[in-house]
Amino acid sequence: MKIIITENVEEMSKVAKDHMLGFMLQDKRVNLSITGGSTPKRMYELVVPEVKGKKYFDNVHYYNFDEIPYKKEDREGVTISELRKSYFTPAAIPEDQIHILDQHNYAGQDERIKNDGGLDAVILGLGSDGHFCGNLPNTTKFGDLTSRVECDDYLKGRILDDFDGQEEYVPDYYITMGPRSIMMAKKLVMIVSGSKKAKIVKEIAAANVTEDIPATVLSLHPNFTLILDKEAASEIR
Amino acid sequence: MKIIITENVEEMSKVAKDHMLGFMLQDKRVNLSITGGSTPKRMYELVVPEVKGKKYFDNVHYYNFDEIPYKKEDREGVTISELRKSYFTPAAIPEDQIHILDQHNYAGQDERIKNDGGLDAVILGLGSDGHFCGNLPNTTKFGDLTSRVECDDYLKGRILDDFDGQEEYVPDYYITMGPRSIMMAKKLVMIVSGSKKAKIVKEIAAANVTEDIPATVLSLHPNFTLILDKEAASEIR
Amino acid sequence: MKIIITENVEEMSKVAKDHMLGFMLQDKRVNLSITGGSTPKRMYELVVPEVKGKKYFDNVHYYNFDEIPYKKEDREGVTISELRKSYFTPAAIPEDQIHILDQHNYAGQDERIKNDGGLDAVILGLGSDGHFCGNLPNTTKFGDLTSRVECDDYLKGRILDDFDGQEEYVPDYYITMGPRSIMMAKKLVMIVSGSKKAKIVKEIAAANVTEDIPATVLSLHPNFTLILDKEAASEIR
Amino acid sequence: MKIIITENVEEMSKVAKDHMLGFMLQDKRVNLSITGGSTPKRMYELVVPEVKGKKYFDNVHYYNFDEIPYKKEDREGVTISELRKSYFTPAAIPEDQIHILDQHNYAGQDERIKNDGGLDAVILGLGSDGHFCGNLPNTTKFGDLTSRVECDDYLKGRILDDFDGQEEYVPDYYITMGPRSIMMAKKLVMIVSGSKKAKIVKEIAAANVTEDIPATVLSLHPNFTLILDKEAASEIR
Repeated sequence: MKIIITENVEEMSKVAKDHMLGFMLQDKRVNLSITGGSTPKRMYELVVPEVKGKKYFDNVHYYNFDEIPYKKEDREGVTISELRKSYFTPAAIPEDQIHILDQHNYAGQDERIKNDGGLDAVILGLGSDGHFCGNLPNTTKFGDLTSRVECDDYLKGRILDDFDGQEEYVPDYYITMGPRSIMMAKKLVMIVSGSKKAKIVKEIAAANVTEDIPATVLSLHPNFTLILDKEAASEIR
Repeated sequence: MKIIITENVEEMSKVAKDHMLGFMLQDKRVNLSITGGSTPKRMYELVVPEVKGKKYFDNVHYYNFDEIPYKKEDREGVTISELRKSYFTPAAIPEDQIHILDQHNYAGQDERIKNDGGLDAVILGLGSDGHFCGNLPNTTKFGDLTSRVECDDYLKGRILDDFDGQEEYVPDYYITMGPRSIMMAKKLVMIVSGSKKAKIVKEIAAANVTEDIPATVLSLHPNFTLILDKEAASEIR
Repeated sequence: MKIIITENVEEMSKVAKDHMLGFMLQDKRVNLSITGGSTPKRMYELVVPEVKGKKYFDNVHYYNFDEIPYKKEDREGVTISELRKSYFTPAAIPEDQIHILDQHNYAGQDERIKNDGGLDAVILGLGSDGHFCGNLPNTTKFGDLTSRVECDDYLKGRILDDFDGQEEYVPDYYITMGPRSIMMAKKLVMIVSGSKKAKIVKEIAAANVTEDIPATVLSLHPNFTLILDKEAASEIR
Repeated sequence: MKIIITENVEEMSKVAKDHMLGFMLQDKRVNLSITGGSTPKRMYELVVPEVKGKKYFDNVHYYNFDEIPYKKEDREGVTISELRKSYFTPAAIPEDQIHILDQHNYAGQDERIKNDGGLDAVILGLGSDGHFCGNLPNTTKFGDLTSRVECDDYLKGRILDDFDGQEEYVPDYYITMGPRSIMMAKKLVMIVSGSKKAKIVKEIAAANVTEDIPATVLSLHPNFTLILDKEAASEIR
């Protein structure tokens, strides 16, 4: 585990951008799984101008690692919509480089990625409850591959915000690559900012591996980098 | 996880030998951690004639991953003595390619391996209680690096055999690379034979990751191969 | 460059077999380009019993790197026929793991291999004139990719033996992956036996790179291993 | 070979910076050989603020790949002085991460780099005569490792500028890693700007490999990236 402590969100985002571009600038197909959410927003803002319209990134293929589908309507889910807004659309990523995971194809996700040559890197965020991707405490087990997670009332409450409070769209389940799916990637990078997550970061940095804090499993990956702002790093000894 | 099911101990040993030689035949320094115990005996018998006196294996460096020291006497411990007998001595491995882990230097083991470029591969056996290296149930945690494990009466009873029943040599502690140390290697290979271990193998193959069966953590490694004889594989669905 | 000097053809073949199996025993698609001709015959004899009927080698894909087509008849060429006889048929390699290069598809060979993830390894022989694959002196240039080589009378004479002296089958051209195509592989292994090739081996070992001896270019590859019997090695200082 | 065509020197320098940082941001020792000269100046200006004072780059080790010593005075040579000025000093690289090649230690350079784990990447410039490092036409051969090149009057004239025209400092020889030393690196990146070099770039891009244009050999490396501004790329078909 390599821990990079930066001064602030701006530096964290720059260092994350440098990692992302470093993965992309290879002379081979690169399979990258990237995160939605608010933490990477600035990273994408920095990446977009370097990627937009550049043909030399046509070797990079993108995979979303979780999805919250809309109930009733068959439209693109929350994660992929976020990724389009933050990155794919402003960076003008060609559609054939985007490999969507959703409720229709999730059962084939791990096999599909294996056939595509495996994930070269995953760039992840961290939940303040210790979740990564859709692996919340008490949902998946460490050994799970990509799976469908049924939502109880608590989980429905958690994702209500993603639908701007419109309950009729909140689904009965969501999709996520499991801890084991993510551990199979060649490289993992997690970006974390803010003091609210400092306690969880401390547990990850100390490798106190427990399913109660799913992201602690990542400390067992042979090639895991944690990029923090000062506040997120404040409880590491 | 790649699972290779062979017909019998002879084929298991041959396939394990092919892995071991495959790691060794590279044009760079190769760091290999290998196991003592009875399971690899035949593998070493097959490797020895291919390695003995061959200068083109001078790039291979060996590391033991655990050690049970003798009480009272300052002589080489159980693991390294076994490795010498099964492999280092018959294969005439030069002393400067053998990097001993013992009770005196264990605190620096993880740093030392990192400075040497990391382990390219670990070849492991499996205990019928689910242990690997010295990581027995209720001794180490998944996140542990190389450490000293204190022996209670149960553990002392477990290792009494290693000292031919001579209680005066049974130590109060032993040394082991922890689960996290092992997970940092680029490649893991585990060899298992016999029906007694079939239940544990089933749990590893199913990736039912639990600290009660330490070896289940290996199912989370991105490059893990399990080589089984038919009997060890008999409970895998 | 790693040079492995063995006692005789038997040991050379064993060490080559160990390399070949080492490449194959990975938990990912492996793309392997292998040679026909007489030098590897014993290697294939040793590999066949370890591979035949073993499902755990279903990740290995084979590519021939040159082809001499039959004139007039549209049947499989000399190289692939040899490979079938020495290896694919006795080892019962499934047809969908064999990726044939021939006069019909050669123009797409380099692109096809790139899309398949690149060659993980090439196992090559050496001609006593310094050729490798179909790269004979004065045919291809170092920078050539897969191409068609027109045969003058000299070249036709050279390949007449491959058609048991039946001139009517000798083609006007043959196909070969070029020096640059081969240099793109991750790993190159060349096996050479016999005193007749000792002079050429000396030039390769000394890295006297010249297009007059095409195989000397391989000395510039970052991961090149030369496996020799004693006689082939006899002129190396 | 991957060819990246950028709009101008600014974009070329940014893309080169992204490559350099991508190599550096790994969780292992990284050995990097970098170029002096005028082409990379802007790249270093962009890298410096991201590297200066950042402890998370303490895994990166630097190697110069050539050196022109001062005659008579035993002071640091032209290349290392340039690298200090452009990069090491402004970026405050610790001295123990700088591995100097000079006239005293060049005979051990290739062995030293091999023992350090090999070069992960080399970032090179191109001379308008087709040279790279100190490999000028008619000085070294493709198969050469690190060596001392004797300077005739022509070469002395060529390097006179490096000594601000002070003839008394112009040495009788210089040091360079040879083409073969450079080809052993895992990754090569060459940056080129300006129409004066367009003709040479065309030959490299076409893989017209000839010792008359030493840099054409790089087209045979399995992992070579060429970063160009528009003018340097203007003659590529």
